Amino acid sequence: MSKAIFYHAGCPVCVSAEQNLLNLIPEDQVEVIHLGEEKSKVKEAEKAGVKSVPALVLPNGNVLHINFGASIEDLK
Amino acid sequence: MSKAIFYHAGCPVCVSAEQNLLNLIPEDQVEVIHLGEEKSKVKEAEKAGVKSVPALVLPNGNVLHINFGASIEDLK
Repeated sequence: MSKAIFYHAGCPVCVSAEQNLLNLIPEDQVEVIHLGEEKSKVKEAEKAGVKSVPALVLPNGNVLHINFGASIEDLK
Repeated sequence: MSKAIFYHAGCPVCVSAEQNLLNLIPEDQVEVIHLGEEKSKVKEAEKAGVKSVPALVLPNGNVLHINFGASIEDLK
């Protein structure tokens, strides 16, 4: 994995964090996945260590959980 | 304020988040402040809305709390 992945679920907290972070991080270095719309990716996010959204999974595998929008449990 | 400010306190969670984020955010767009070493900045951080570190205060005033290292109360 060479890009970071920003997982979110479309909640106001998520959208706000997304806009903020994408202003700072160059667009070609981050992929954005909406777990509310792409339910099939929830398992992948969970496997990566995502416990809540919004979260940023980094190229080195570290997970940054940002503020708190929704639990990954609520997205299943 | 035209730069984001990354507040941390030197804890392992902070340092790890710092390295990760600074890999993604261009260096000239973020200022790093170590609240453990610059106690005088704690009040400023608190005023900006920082509740725990590591946190990223954005140019638009929004605060992103990342994971959880230490409460701002513990830094006073």
